[in-house]
Amino acid sequence: MHKIYPFFIVLFFVSLQTGLAQDQRDADAIMLKKIHEFSLTQGSCYDWLKHLCKEAGPRLAGSSAYNNAVRLTSADLGSIHDVSVYTQEVEVNKWVRGSKEIVEVIIDENNIVPLNALGLGNSIGTGLEGIIAEVIEVKGLDEVEKLGIKAIKGKIVFFNRPMETNTTRSFTAYGRAVDQRAYGASKAAEYGAVAAVVRSMTHEIDEFPHTGALVYKEGIVQIPGLAISTQAAETLSSLIKEHKGIKLFIRNTSKFDGKAQSPNVIGEIKGSKYPDKIILVGGHLDAWDVAQGAHDDGTGCVQAMEVLHTLVGLGYRPNCTIRCVLFSNEESGLAGATAYAKTAISKNESHLAAIESDAGGFSPRGFTFDADTSVFKKYYKKASSDFLPLLESYGLMFETGGSGADIGPLKPLKGLLIGLRPDSQRYFDFHHTSRDNIEAVNPRELKMGAAAMSSLVYLIDKYGL
Amino acid sequence: MHKIYPFFIVLFFVSLQTGLAQDQRDADAIMLKKIHEFSLTQGSCYDWLKHLCKEAGPRLAGSSAYNNAVRLTSADLGSIHDVSVYTQEVEVNKWVRGSKEIVEVIIDENNIVPLNALGLGNSIGTGLEGIIAEVIEVKGLDEVEKLGIKAIKGKIVFFNRPMETNTTRSFTAYGRAVDQRAYGASKAAEYGAVAAVVRSMTHEIDEFPHTGALVYKEGIVQIPGLAISTQAAETLSSLIKEHKGIKLFIRNTSKFDGKAQSPNVIGEIKGSKYPDKIILVGGHLDAWDVAQGAHDDGTGCVQAMEVLHTLVGLGYRPNCTIRCVLFSNEESGLAGATAYAKTAISKNESHLAAIESDAGGFSPRGFTFDADTSVFKKYYKKASSDFLPLLESYGLMFETGGSGADIGPLKPLKGLLIGLRPDSQRYFDFHHTSRDNIEAVNPRELKMGAAAMSSLVYLIDKYGL
Repeated sequence: MHKIYPFFIVLFFVSLQTGLAQDQRDADAIMLKKIHEFSLTQGSCYDWLKHLCKEAGPRLAGSSAYNNAVRLTSADLGSIHDVSVYTQEVEVNKWVRGSKEIVEVIIDENNIVPLNALGLGNSIGTGLEGIIAEVIEVKGLDEVEKLGIKAIKGKIVFFNRPMETNTTRSFTAYGRAVDQRAYGASKAAEYGAVAAVVRSMTHEIDEFPHTGALVYKEGIVQIPGLAISTQAAETLSSLIKEHKGIKLFIRNTSKFDGKAQSPNVIGEIKGSKYPDKIILVGGHLDAWDVAQGAHDDGTGCVQAMEVLHTLVGLGYRPNCTIRCVLFSNEESGLAGATAYAKTAISKNESHLAAIESDAGGFSPRGFTFDADTSVFKKYYKKASSDFLPLLESYGLMFETGGSGADIGPLKPLKGLLIGLRPDSQRYFDFHHTSRDNIEAVNPRELKMGAAAMSSLVYLIDKYGL
Repeated sequence: MHKIYPFFIVLFFVSLQTGLAQDQRDADAIMLKKIHEFSLTQGSCYDWLKHLCKEAGPRLAGSSAYNNAVRLTSADLGSIHDVSVYTQEVEVNKWVRGSKEIVEVIIDENNIVPLNALGLGNSIGTGLEGIIAEVIEVKGLDEVEKLGIKAIKGKIVFFNRPMETNTTRSFTAYGRAVDQRAYGASKAAEYGAVAAVVRSMTHEIDEFPHTGALVYKEGIVQIPGLAISTQAAETLSSLIKEHKGIKLFIRNTSKFDGKAQSPNVIGEIKGSKYPDKIILVGGHLDAWDVAQGAHDDGTGCVQAMEVLHTLVGLGYRPNCTIRCVLFSNEESGLAGATAYAKTAISKNESHLAAIESDAGGFSPRGFTFDADTSVFKKYYKKASSDFLPLLESYGLMFETGGSGADIGPLKPLKGLLIGLRPDSQRYFDFHHTSRDNIEAVNPRELKMGAAAMSSLVYLIDKYGL
């Protein structure tokens, strides 16, 4: 997914002839230094993260906690001079977890082993009576197909392919394992299974189950899906080897509960020269209901807010409109992103660039670039030649690769889609677990990420693409 | 201290003509990938760190815990095929902390506020009776000079200049504040003070005092020195503003307790072609006595050990001798480094390069290069042109700057001195505190650092410098 772009150094050399003049470069280097200093010494993003984490509550889209988060971030955005704040209506399918999930290994009636579990988002429930069935372990969706209906029918399928440890990029390993969580239940149901249990998406072997979205395939019967911790997965796998035909008892009472309003929050500074050209910065405001949603994606929201705060704080008057969008419902349906893109495309709004932070609040390592292929080459080339040399002093690199789930739908507008790329090694220690709380965020790492985004926004605003 | 070297991109282009051929580059890229995969999937460094952190005990040089650490690391090094292990005698001045330190603010006899404190390493004690004296707050050593003997005499000097928050590099901020801890007591004593209390070296405002070495200036009377937590420093500063002439009661019973043997641990693989050319990898085995010494510098030790393990594990037969040195007494006197350099210089051992990891086990960001100026340009140029392009895919950058306290004394041998540079934002959350335990280390970050070192060692060994 993330590929190092091997030509950026070549492009730098082109820029020595065609790029920015030296005095401009010097002035920009000073501005980037000011941006970093402002963020580290006067940045508000960590305080705003406290509001979100400690005052809003676990803010799944459609919940009352989400509405608290809308109120809090609107107030914080509104406290920045020159920023106008509004919300955008988003209707979501409201999903509720229900009571604490149960997953137990039933070896026999005197030997029952409880496993740490969390229901997957969007899962149907088992009913209060739960489900008891034999468990069968597989390493992936293809194995379900290979085993066929005879082996799978009536059973609970246990997807237990760990995230690969040999890749240096955690997100790559996640991308290669997460099909089990997203599509495992539907694949199992296709072959007659009664439920699916999936190993949590993390490199750590620990007791924290990781939730996340399950996606039901249309036309396939819906069965419940739950995640168990990696330690529980190791235990279950051992027990399956030791005992023939052991069963699981599972119970979850989650369900969809109608429609709800769950708006996007938007704050913007109108451009002084090109008010119709938009540079978007964003994250998603919703979070899973099991923790404070600090790294996913409280940090992304407050970093996007900090971009406006920093530019205003330094007295920089942007040429383009700088728009901060806090998207709703990224975790469980992307309704916020869909609504935003629909409006933007119908109005044919010019989005010069969109930058999303949704990979944790860790030390920034650079940006990933994505765009419609017709515009990609030109834009990425310019960013690499003109902007990268200034950003390298802060340890930032450019790569091609996915940008962000919320800005992806903006591709038809032919702007450059950019993802902030923080260090990825610790993200999946916290992702979608009860541990994703503010204590897991280092204030300086958070502020450095905000400064990286502000720096890139400043350069795009000043020089275009 | 750390300066980005602006020419490495230029040098890369020179290397297109003069550097490594493309097929060599491809083969090396494959080897670097193997190194990273080995480290992440078969690396032993995290297990070794567990031994050191959980079995040795808090291992100040000269202590019995240090001897445990010698035994454990010798055994772990000895478990690597083809590695011969030996120790090198080092005599240290043994310092012992004594009982739990007390620092109290005495507003009046009914109002006494205890502060979280740790005695500084190498500090003399107050005696059991402690010291009561008026406290005076200063922002640095120069302020003591300015205030002069009249203001300082008979008082306890409270050094309270915080680490600067505006720099992106934590080590830069540390370097600019740590003179207060190292030399504050002597400067205060020069003007007649009876003790020195210093604000802890961290950006966080929390309740954890940070110890660290105090250095007594020769010819100046020795007075006790203690650190208080940053939160305690904020409290004390407020109280000083509120109440005129308030006093501190301090007590610490630390002392020097004679000489002790505290050896360096060395493991090496003899070079197949150039056994007399040495590439050193190292960290320091001693640690402050208040925690497990995980990031400082257990991680550096096990990463250096992992370099040997990885090269052997991949069946690579080095041309040069690869020597892993775990130095004694870095924290409180550098006796291990001094003994090693003395022997190496007296034997005129050829140290092609020395790489130290002593900045925490966080995600690697690159290397800092240092050397005798007569050899610096040539070596750094070669490393930048031939090696950097291969390392950049792993997010590694080169900079000029300090390498490591233990390898610094090797400068006369005219090799290249190199420091592993991990991400620095969280280091001073743990440094020299009771929090520096294995729970603060992420196994993948640790292994990525080891792989970065192994990669650079492989390239230096294969191509020389």
